[in-house]
Amino acid sequence: MDHPAIESFDDIRRLMADLPAPDPAALAAARARDAVLTKPAGALGRLESLADWMAGWQGRHPPRLDRARVLVFAGNHGVAARGVSAFPAEVTAQMVANFRAGGAAINQFCDAMGAELVVRALDLDRPTADFTVQPAMGEAECVQAFAAGMAAVGSDPDLIGVGEMGIANTTSAAALCGLLFGGAAADWVGPGTGVAGDDLRRKTDAVAVAMALHGGDPVDPLAALARVGGRELAAMAGAILAARFDGIPVLLDGYVCCAAAAVLHALTPAALAHCQAGHVSAEPAHAKLLALLEKSPLLDLGMRLGEASGAAVAIGVVKAAIAAHTGMATFADAGVADSPGDPS
Amino acid sequence: MDHPAIESFDDIRRLMADLPAPDPAALAAARARDAVLTKPAGALGRLESLADWMAGWQGRHPPRLDRARVLVFAGNHGVAARGVSAFPAEVTAQMVANFRAGGAAINQFCDAMGAELVVRALDLDRPTADFTVQPAMGEAECVQAFAAGMAAVGSDPDLIGVGEMGIANTTSAAALCGLLFGGAAADWVGPGTGVAGDDLRRKTDAVAVAMALHGGDPVDPLAALARVGGRELAAMAGAILAARFDGIPVLLDGYVCCAAAAVLHALTPAALAHCQAGHVSAEPAHAKLLALLEKSPLLDLGMRLGEASGAAVAIGVVKAAIAAHTGMATFADAGVADSPGDPS
Repeated sequence: MDHPAIESFDDIRRLMADLPAPDPAALAAARARDAVLTKPAGALGRLESLADWMAGWQGRHPPRLDRARVLVFAGNHGVAARGVSAFPAEVTAQMVANFRAGGAAINQFCDAMGAELVVRALDLDRPTADFTVQPAMGEAECVQAFAAGMAAVGSDPDLIGVGEMGIANTTSAAALCGLLFGGAAADWVGPGTGVAGDDLRRKTDAVAVAMALHGGDPVDPLAALARVGGRELAAMAGAILAARFDGIPVLLDGYVCCAAAAVLHALTPAALAHCQAGHVSAEPAHAKLLALLEKSPLLDLGMRLGEASGAAVAIGVVKAAIAAHTGMATFADAGVADSPGDPS
Repeated sequence: MDHPAIESFDDIRRLMADLPAPDPAALAAARARDAVLTKPAGALGRLESLADWMAGWQGRHPPRLDRARVLVFAGNHGVAARGVSAFPAEVTAQMVANFRAGGAAINQFCDAMGAELVVRALDLDRPTADFTVQPAMGEAECVQAFAAGMAAVGSDPDLIGVGEMGIANTTSAAALCGLLFGGAAADWVGPGTGVAGDDLRRKTDAVAVAMALHGGDPVDPLAALARVGGRELAAMAGAILAARFDGIPVLLDGYVCCAAAAVLHALTPAALAHCQAGHVSAEPAHAKLLALLEKSPLLDLGMRLGEASGAAVAIGVVKAAIAAHTGMATFADAGVADSPGDPS
């Protein structure tokens, strides 16, 4: 749908003051159907709650999953010049080219899951400022990226997965979590693409410097996003928020995606109720962040790639949930006894 | 392929003395390709090891997953008359009819994953004997069901999922685990389809009686299968063994499937090397059993349905692994820098 124009943090705050709730009738219809399908009550576990969640947030019963869309936002980070990643900053643009040529992991996952891939490269030739010396973005720049994320969702998908590409962005995610949740830099820093030893110490130092420079008590979550985030983080937050207004359930990806989502959560904890965690990644701080967001991951496969890869693989789980919910026979239809001593 | 005729437990033991190993060349080729795909080393986690596993056991590189087959074996159990299940024994045949009509959960999962469903109902009108008073099966009866499982695999699938339907078969699985691994009956008994209170006590008592009646020190694993197993458990063990000889990787389902697999493991721990645990179910003893089998589950979704449902949903994870492994570009192909300071 069309969203109101977002030109300032206050515009975002105004939007968040009026978040839609799930549709109670669709949710009730889904739960009623769960109870009469040919299986013991609750025997499909998380798959049953996923079908209910899809119905409630889509506002319809039965829920549908014909069109899944995966959004990957890419951004470049000034802090990359500090040597915090195992890869040079040029790799962000090279991987965007790889996405467009169909050669990345996310292309294969989208093909396997029948999902559409949308890639938005956000001013890659203009990295954000190095947040160890100044704010990464000003408010206008941050809001512009947030609005680009909102615009990328579209109104037609039945589900979106949200993810990112950006060399040095686990450093950005760590600094953002540090500002939002407190703790030491080391609590939020991990190997990312594979740094260790001196490189890992440099990464931790960069986050500690950023937390000291930009922290406050309390830190406004949107200000934190501008100061240590990146364009792809702001865009992911925007996409997650837009999906809420459009009745589109969201699968979150890994650590960087969830750090972006945490900005919305810090503003209003209910803001992520339409989101599921697609997976828990191997990046150590991701599990801690998911616990703070009160999200239980659908998958735990030791992945740590980003690119929305964990969210995309999790689409298969949601597909299974929707297929069972919509396609199974009821006890009455199938002539199956649904209680002890009642052979129908 | 054609398997040697199996007419006795000794025939099974002879087969198991000569288990094929994974193909070292295919495995090495898969690992070499993992290292040059456009992602940080190891960033796809379990998906990388799944692709290697598929290549090694299929004996070819690249591995393929065009044809997945899900096998569901159904059997009836004399012990059902003891009131150990929340459902009457008639439900086994009713659910087989539901599978054939396309109305069960497993039908929807197979459709969603593009897998073929094969259902084998094993003498449903002739339940096994009540193992609280006598052996469930004689050797000939057990071997016949094992051979039926072997025959159901076929030689063409790229992967099989293995599961079951049989009212009272978590009671059978619990007794089998008790005989194979020891411990108290309560260690292996859970709610199954949803028993509680007096029903759960009756179920635990039935398992305790069976363990006392049929236990020995040591218990031969195949004898244990005959004494407290069921036809669908013997058939699952047969299918798993046949797949090993045919170069077909296997996804195990839940507690009952893994109890059947445990018979092979008790004979030779390497017997399950070509198997992955599709999921860990909500049945409490399943996690303990997987630990004893040294299997880490692909999914943990609180499912407890049987029907190969967890294995079938896990096919989506293996599909993602194969899609990434076979479809991704290499660093060289994509012109992506693969090390710090080397922007290609």
